[in-house]
Amino acid sequence: MKKTLLITCMTLLLAACGNESQVNKTQPVKNIIMVVSDGTGPAYTTAYRYYNDDPTTETIEETVFDRHLVGMASTYPARVSGYVTDSAAAATALSTGIKSYNGAIGVDVNKQPIQTVLEYAKLTGKKTGVVVTSQINHATPASYLAHNESRKNYDAIANSYIDDGIKADVYLGGGWKYFIRDDRNLVEEFKTAGFQYVDNYDQLGSLKANTPVLGLFDKVGLPWALDDKHPNRLSIMTKAAIKQLENDNGYFMLIEASQVDWAGHGNDIASAMTEINDLAITMEYLEEYVKLHPDTLVILTADHSTGGLTIAANGKYEWNPEFIRTMTESATSIANKLIASPIDKTLVEELFHFPVSDEEVNRLQQAKIEQQTSTSEYNPPVYNAVKAIIDKRTNTGWTTSGHTGVDVQVFAMGVNTDMFKGIIDNTDIAKNIFTLLGR
Amino acid sequence: MKKTLLITCMTLLLAACGNESQVNKTQPVKNIIMVVSDGTGPAYTTAYRYYNDDPTTETIEETVFDRHLVGMASTYPARVSGYVTDSAAAATALSTGIKSYNGAIGVDVNKQPIQTVLEYAKLTGKKTGVVVTSQINHATPASYLAHNESRKNYDAIANSYIDDGIKADVYLGGGWKYFIRDDRNLVEEFKTAGFQYVDNYDQLGSLKANTPVLGLFDKVGLPWALDDKHPNRLSIMTKAAIKQLENDNGYFMLIEASQVDWAGHGNDIASAMTEINDLAITMEYLEEYVKLHPDTLVILTADHSTGGLTIAANGKYEWNPEFIRTMTESATSIANKLIASPIDKTLVEELFHFPVSDEEVNRLQQAKIEQQTSTSEYNPPVYNAVKAIIDKRTNTGWTTSGHTGVDVQVFAMGVNTDMFKGIIDNTDIAKNIFTLLGR
Repeated sequence: MKKTLLITCMTLLLAACGNESQVNKTQPVKNIIMVVSDGTGPAYTTAYRYYNDDPTTETIEETVFDRHLVGMASTYPARVSGYVTDSAAAATALSTGIKSYNGAIGVDVNKQPIQTVLEYAKLTGKKTGVVVTSQINHATPASYLAHNESRKNYDAIANSYIDDGIKADVYLGGGWKYFIRDDRNLVEEFKTAGFQYVDNYDQLGSLKANTPVLGLFDKVGLPWALDDKHPNRLSIMTKAAIKQLENDNGYFMLIEASQVDWAGHGNDIASAMTEINDLAITMEYLEEYVKLHPDTLVILTADHSTGGLTIAANGKYEWNPEFIRTMTESATSIANKLIASPIDKTLVEELFHFPVSDEEVNRLQQAKIEQQTSTSEYNPPVYNAVKAIIDKRTNTGWTTSGHTGVDVQVFAMGVNTDMFKGIIDNTDIAKNIFTLLGR
Repeated sequence: MKKTLLITCMTLLLAACGNESQVNKTQPVKNIIMVVSDGTGPAYTTAYRYYNDDPTTETIEETVFDRHLVGMASTYPARVSGYVTDSAAAATALSTGIKSYNGAIGVDVNKQPIQTVLEYAKLTGKKTGVVVTSQINHATPASYLAHNESRKNYDAIANSYIDDGIKADVYLGGGWKYFIRDDRNLVEEFKTAGFQYVDNYDQLGSLKANTPVLGLFDKVGLPWALDDKHPNRLSIMTKAAIKQLENDNGYFMLIEASQVDWAGHGNDIASAMTEINDLAITMEYLEEYVKLHPDTLVILTADHSTGGLTIAANGKYEWNPEFIRTMTESATSIANKLIASPIDKTLVEELFHFPVSDEEVNRLQQAKIEQQTSTSEYNPPVYNAVKAIIDKRTNTGWTTSGHTGVDVQVFAMGVNTDMFKGIIDNTDIAKNIFTLLGR
């Protein structure tokens, strides 16, 4: 008896002492939620902290991002594409664990299809879903759902969502244009396959349970959060998607805050901040969700940073988000209204929500004249003049309409967050997810 | 006997099970090495990875920074100075745990002196030291050693190193100008106080043990690593300092890679990369040191980022460090040589180490003419033209000659690295060090 007790005790003791070495081992995970904030490098989440700050309080308010950083990730594509990735190669790295060339959708450098974490999760019996603010066949969601040599083949990628077998139970985002076409109505094909289809957010409240759902809420991408009647559309869609996806086997879900990247490409700081605000609300919801469902893992990262955003510029040690906190429309929307109406100081101040100088009004009028003869499709004169006023007021810097190579942050909540700590590569994120899924 | 055994076993079991909750408690630490890489935001260490990459290998080589990231830190100064810090307020936050105004050296917003971690370490009986590549009375070291309402009071800060009582056992860096003056010879005063004085690196090999040391190796800051006969001077000084500082009570040491910031202010990407290379060699040494001295904690962070550096610019998805890998002098040195000699293509290509166009040679010649009438003290025409060529070749972006507000990385090695994980504030770094020192 004494000997038996001793052995039992020793066994328990060894098991207990083993705790430390088991810290690095993985725990069972039921649900995996992968969140990609497209184009959102470290300057964006930092800027958001100051944009979100209440200047009447003594301290600077913590954001949801401040609570969950675990590390950073390198984003470089396959050697053939140099050091700066596009969204397709980056999403392919995040979805497959393989480095590929810029433009690649779920294929390797030899254009061969590579299994994605979403596909594998489906194989293991999990439900799967994608929720994005771009069209649902844009580079990031496509890299989880499709295999195509080029991100530009939007119709072919949309077709593959049916033709290669339906891989997800929930698709929410934009993209009528690609799914209801003259040559093919993919929405009808989804319906025939048993999907319920919705095209406005109100319908999300009355979805049938245990029935897959396709929701397309705009022609291409959704409106800018700053211009949208539903500025929190990412969190609205996320909540609805999770409700549909929950089941005994768990689910894998991709959420993308797609348009932080687009704001970065357009160097529109006000839109960037409000897109991140929608993401922050989504992350706060997921933060509560993980508390109630501790067998869930949420990972948030960016695919790369966009625009070369810097918090301060031009030799001045200041950044002034107070000017964008009160803005109520995107630079695109302001530019469109200035093009549509005669420009005077009253209109300009009504659109910007801050005082402007006569010189600035003149500059906008001049830009409108230039625009009549401009052939620039991207960032035309009026848009550039609008942006210049916002950048000057806020003292925001930009270096590019494209991407930059800075490492991006990795945030995680729930089980197994330690797998993502330190500096990892974007491919490690997919590799870790495959490990957790048992591949 | 059975009962005794059971109780013993249970006690052991409880102790063992307690491991998990003890993970967050601190371990005893003997030596603390605080490394500040001035101005080195996330784009810098990422860029260094690609600068350091051997393009003939399939993979991108890991850097020492890639192995030790634990989190990031916010850098904003006291509310009175907005969201973008200078080096003085940031160093004061790192040294005292208090937010202050831009320009503050070891004083709070009311200009009252605040105890620094170096001062407290000295009080607890540890040896202390500072090793920097700037003058030793520059903002960062001064914020650990002095209390002054303005970083600009260089002579007063130098005087205080004697007048307020000598606080360190080792001072290595630059700054003759401030320590050997017409009105006062502080070097002689240090000698009178028992210090050995050195002014060239060779002397570091034969320092007397148990004797404090003042080493000043240049008039103000040390030469750029890229121009220096001793490009690894930070690691040379660090090794010598540690040898002097080691003792039974342990030591606190500040190391600053001061000139990454200066390269950022000058938007000189080649100098930035070689300054970081000197830091990387220093960190690799410390990595080995910590293995041999596991009771040591090394923390590395930046005080802020400088220059608005971006890896890619101008809409192009590329960054081309191959052009700067072969450079052998700083932009400053190239500009000086172009001013001193007639400019032709042979000279220009000899200085840049890559082919240039006739148009670029013309542009440099033109800049030299402009420089004759230029009143710009900072970034004069020839320097700007040199820099423009480097930026164009590498596709490097910059937005400012000043600082930006992006969060900075925190790296740690040795004991208690967990204290610094996630997103923390720069003041938390000082607070954690005070905790470890027992205050």
